[in-house]
Amino acid sequence: MYKFIFMKRVAVFTSGGDAPGMNACIRAVVRTAIYNNIEVYGIMRGYEGMIKGRIHRMESKSVSNIIQQGGTILKSARSAEFRTYEGRKQAYQQLKHFDIDGLVAVGGDGTFTGAKVFHEEFGMPTVGCPGTIDNDIYGTDYTIGYDTAVNTALEAIDKIRDTADSHNRVFFVEVMGRDSGYIAIQSGIGGGAEIVMVPETETTIAQVIETLQKGRLNHKSSSIVIVAEGDEEGNATDIAAKVMDATEGLDIKVTTLGHIQRGGSPTAQDRILASRTGIGAVEGLLAGKSSVMAGVKNNKLVYTPFEDAIDKNKPIEDELIKLVDVLSI
Amino acid sequence: MYKFIFMKRVAVFTSGGDAPGMNACIRAVVRTAIYNNIEVYGIMRGYEGMIKGRIHRMESKSVSNIIQQGGTILKSARSAEFRTYEGRKQAYQQLKHFDIDGLVAVGGDGTFTGAKVFHEEFGMPTVGCPGTIDNDIYGTDYTIGYDTAVNTALEAIDKIRDTADSHNRVFFVEVMGRDSGYIAIQSGIGGGAEIVMVPETETTIAQVIETLQKGRLNHKSSSIVIVAEGDEEGNATDIAAKVMDATEGLDIKVTTLGHIQRGGSPTAQDRILASRTGIGAVEGLLAGKSSVMAGVKNNKLVYTPFEDAIDKNKPIEDELIKLVDVLSI
Amino acid sequence: MYKFIFMKRVAVFTSGGDAPGMNACIRAVVRTAIYNNIEVYGIMRGYEGMIKGRIHRMESKSVSNIIQQGGTILKSARSAEFRTYEGRKQAYQQLKHFDIDGLVAVGGDGTFTGAKVFHEEFGMPTVGCPGTIDNDIYGTDYTIGYDTAVNTALEAIDKIRDTADSHNRVFFVEVMGRDSGYIAIQSGIGGGAEIVMVPETETTIAQVIETLQKGRLNHKSSSIVIVAEGDEEGNATDIAAKVMDATEGLDIKVTTLGHIQRGGSPTAQDRILASRTGIGAVEGLLAGKSSVMAGVKNNKLVYTPFEDAIDKNKPIEDELIKLVDVLSI
Amino acid sequence: MYKFIFMKRVAVFTSGGDAPGMNACIRAVVRTAIYNNIEVYGIMRGYEGMIKGRIHRMESKSVSNIIQQGGTILKSARSAEFRTYEGRKQAYQQLKHFDIDGLVAVGGDGTFTGAKVFHEEFGMPTVGCPGTIDNDIYGTDYTIGYDTAVNTALEAIDKIRDTADSHNRVFFVEVMGRDSGYIAIQSGIGGGAEIVMVPETETTIAQVIETLQKGRLNHKSSSIVIVAEGDEEGNATDIAAKVMDATEGLDIKVTTLGHIQRGGSPTAQDRILASRTGIGAVEGLLAGKSSVMAGVKNNKLVYTPFEDAIDKNKPIEDELIKLVDVLSI
Repeated sequence: MYKFIFMKRVAVFTSGGDAPGMNACIRAVVRTAIYNNIEVYGIMRGYEGMIKGRIHRMESKSVSNIIQQGGTILKSARSAEFRTYEGRKQAYQQLKHFDIDGLVAVGGDGTFTGAKVFHEEFGMPTVGCPGTIDNDIYGTDYTIGYDTAVNTALEAIDKIRDTADSHNRVFFVEVMGRDSGYIAIQSGIGGGAEIVMVPETETTIAQVIETLQKGRLNHKSSSIVIVAEGDEEGNATDIAAKVMDATEGLDIKVTTLGHIQRGGSPTAQDRILASRTGIGAVEGLLAGKSSVMAGVKNNKLVYTPFEDAIDKNKPIEDELIKLVDVLSI
Repeated sequence: MYKFIFMKRVAVFTSGGDAPGMNACIRAVVRTAIYNNIEVYGIMRGYEGMIKGRIHRMESKSVSNIIQQGGTILKSARSAEFRTYEGRKQAYQQLKHFDIDGLVAVGGDGTFTGAKVFHEEFGMPTVGCPGTIDNDIYGTDYTIGYDTAVNTALEAIDKIRDTADSHNRVFFVEVMGRDSGYIAIQSGIGGGAEIVMVPETETTIAQVIETLQKGRLNHKSSSIVIVAEGDEEGNATDIAAKVMDATEGLDIKVTTLGHIQRGGSPTAQDRILASRTGIGAVEGLLAGKSSVMAGVKNNKLVYTPFEDAIDKNKPIEDELIKLVDVLSI
Repeated sequence: MYKFIFMKRVAVFTSGGDAPGMNACIRAVVRTAIYNNIEVYGIMRGYEGMIKGRIHRMESKSVSNIIQQGGTILKSARSAEFRTYEGRKQAYQQLKHFDIDGLVAVGGDGTFTGAKVFHEEFGMPTVGCPGTIDNDIYGTDYTIGYDTAVNTALEAIDKIRDTADSHNRVFFVEVMGRDSGYIAIQSGIGGGAEIVMVPETETTIAQVIETLQKGRLNHKSSSIVIVAEGDEEGNATDIAAKVMDATEGLDIKVTTLGHIQRGGSPTAQDRILASRTGIGAVEGLLAGKSSVMAGVKNNKLVYTPFEDAIDKNKPIEDELIKLVDVLSI
Repeated sequence: MYKFIFMKRVAVFTSGGDAPGMNACIRAVVRTAIYNNIEVYGIMRGYEGMIKGRIHRMESKSVSNIIQQGGTILKSARSAEFRTYEGRKQAYQQLKHFDIDGLVAVGGDGTFTGAKVFHEEFGMPTVGCPGTIDNDIYGTDYTIGYDTAVNTALEAIDKIRDTADSHNRVFFVEVMGRDSGYIAIQSGIGGGAEIVMVPETETTIAQVIETLQKGRLNHKSSSIVIVAEGDEEGNATDIAAKVMDATEGLDIKVTTLGHIQRGGSPTAQDRILASRTGIGAVEGLLAGKSSVMAGVKNNKLVYTPFEDAIDKNKPIEDELIKLVDVLSI
């Protein structure tokens, strides 16, 4: 099955915002490499560590007992230097110094953009794994970390519902998702939210007020409004303030979930996705692929060119957006 | 969109083994009915309650604050009586007494088999929702409760790994799945198990011993063997005993996870699947469908005839089975 | 043991900020009353519902399956009206209308103050249970909800540590506790925080900066600063801004945990404390006590006069404050 | 405060059954030693590693990011060899080889017994920390790991209640506690169990049957019987079988929670107790103490001679045992 066993040494790194499951992915990359008799190296702190040569050998033991850990043992960072040709050249020289033949890049859009340019300039084969909680990458049904982030948000919403209900309150809850409403829509449906505000659709303040007041008339004991951080009406605090200005008698509170959504032990789905794409990345490299991302679509491992993964849109299903209206009746 | 608004009253019930997310499904059924201006009733304890007329009106409020609760507020039971024609006739008369036009049945194979016969005999339209932790139903990628059960098993395995590792032990962990290895394979991959024994593939005691001894040679600090309860080599206790008889120096323990896998607050994925199929079931009834199950495949709502859902096989992807070998290296 | 069985009907209510375990306490009150052959009533929404006569009979079944639920099934509210004599008089008339002989009040300082005045004016016997997440009540080692709130904060801090560590960041995490640093100090110790800022002790911005910079010199991969919302240096956002202004090169983020600390299924400790004080409250009433709070000190049930519970201070042990310095070395 | 700064090197080890919080304790020991300018070593696998000289230097970094981890990074084991004089002599020589002046032993009865003999024979100062989930050690209100084990059991019972309730079932749930009913009684109260069977009190099969049948008459939708593994009537499976033989119409299931109770991330209470006793152990050694255990009673750090910790009884409060009867009414 693996025709092109020219590859002798691969390296793996994580880059961009960290996501639960990145460690499971690193583990899969390391063990698949060893299973295929290739040496494997870890690069610390993404492109920054690549430039500085923070590169070390990894064994099967290096990734023992990390599958359940949040964060990334290889750490992550942004690198301004890698955006310059000079920086990338230095990175390439470091990789050559370590005789690295191929790279596995775990991250999101920005990570893949860097890898694509790097490959064009220096011919370093790279396969990506979609590691980001935002689920905004084309070419995979889900991204590594997304399912954990949704469940973390959901557990928080469940807790907030407890107190909202006890006090007949309205809560505006802001979840992560600068350009994508995935976390908002799924945690909103799962949390039984009355309203979900996402960048993808327009929900006006007037609509929010109307729904909340209808809820009060129907003696709803509480209402939850989920706001994706990238919503066009502003953040949760802004929106709540506008609603408060325009209404009376609603007891309104705001919570911004923040960085707890980035951490925590990954869910089963994230560990499995991370494992499958990690294996897929190494097998892809061995099969001669480059500048592609390993993803899982319809429960099958697929490779998508970096440029599609970066540029193409992954819209939220209309059906999901409609759900909220029906179920919050 | 809904052409056949002949339906005026639907009833919903849960049947067979309970599964986390059933409440989210009931909620979706009730609210979708109300949204479409149909009356909705709840039947207690499945077919048994149908026969006894334990049927009551439900409002939007009846399903407030249940989306996050495990179990089923409508309860579940097995009914020997419904297996007789006499029993089914009585059930039909009860439904007529309440002017019920259509049914939503939340359950698994057995539930759908009952509903199919019932429809053939008495013409009562029924649409099903796949509610079972086993994920052994054709026509839907996942079943309601499966994702929660896998994550419950996974959290247990994580805890067991902690103690196994501290004592350099081998643990045999039995998970649910009488005819299906889905929970075993996914919790095994997620939990970093060394071996997963499922009904679908043959793993001999000799192979188990070989892998465990190889692990010891490689100084693995612990080994986890996941056993699906329906494995052909027996249950976890039996298999562990055979391994103990044939080896020396392995410190072996057994844990049977049991019914904790049936309970707990449902995960985001289960709540969403339950909501989508609950909505789909009512919409299906309104559109004139019967004896079909509402499922989600490739992230699209689809209807599958009961006979296919019951009879057709849903095999585990070979890729997943292979994963365990590669990753436990 | 119970000499004064004059009491025939007691009522229970929750008041002030809700806390996990209030439901377990209501359950204990209801069942202890029934066990002692007294009728028991629930009052909705605290003093507000008392004034409005929102009072209903409760049975053993009314409190089935609530021990594990966050929030309060009797709801909570603030009542401006009860602060007036007129309001209290109306409340008293309502209680007389229902033939209520005694009250169990689950809440904090404000709740007990109201109950004390009410008893002085109208002679209505009331025993309190300490229900507040803040643990700021004298006469009990812990308050109902406190242990859950600490563990919720701790789980959030664990998640934040994951991402802080991956990016070598400093996080300022604000936890609840307007007048009390208990949640901050215990979640800070448990979360391995580098600094904990509480109202009880003075920590200057200069000290914070010094500790953070020492951490950087020692190559700490992340630092967590826990800020109690009532800290004298301002809230977490303010403090972080001051630190950012005065330093360079620290990658600083802020998270305000907010209302998630009020919800969630109560821990074992909170359920047990709630059960013990709930029983103790009813037994206290039956024994002729009034205007006292049932608490648990040194694992013994004790009664403390409302005025002490309200007025006396419960300082944080110095030993705990010192812990943070030693352990974050 | 520390008069006897003769000590220059201490070593820490964990022994006996592992318990959540042992890592937090190791962390506290290591950092307190460093804070006091003493060198600190870790001994792997308890007395076994001591005999074999598996002893290594620890730094502040060695214990970074372990406070939240279950298990023990120093591992644990039983050592038959240490029960012989020869074994202990070898252990002593190893410690001398490393110039170790004092020991911190984290474990239970067996661990302390070993340490006491060792001190008597070779004069090696040792202070203990109570690390065991069983809470059966005199001289401390709680043991490290106990609170986590109770909460793990409780979460499992909550899940089981979900499914028991859906099917109107009786569940016998076996929890850990060979000689002590602490986990049983506290998880039973917290879980709303109908019956709790502990070694400390006698509950006959006839009483169990009577309570279960009364529950059925009162239309209880489910019943949970918690059985401590050391109950005099046998294990949960035995007891359930006897009840099944003597009754009809009860739908009875059994679950043995097993080793999941030993693992998992420690609760706040366990991390704090572990930290306090870890600090106390090192400070105790520095103050010239030996053959004592550092515990926390009434929220104060106290030292108890090993012989008392081992021999004296810590009975369960009668009040707690009575609770179950009142609350399950």
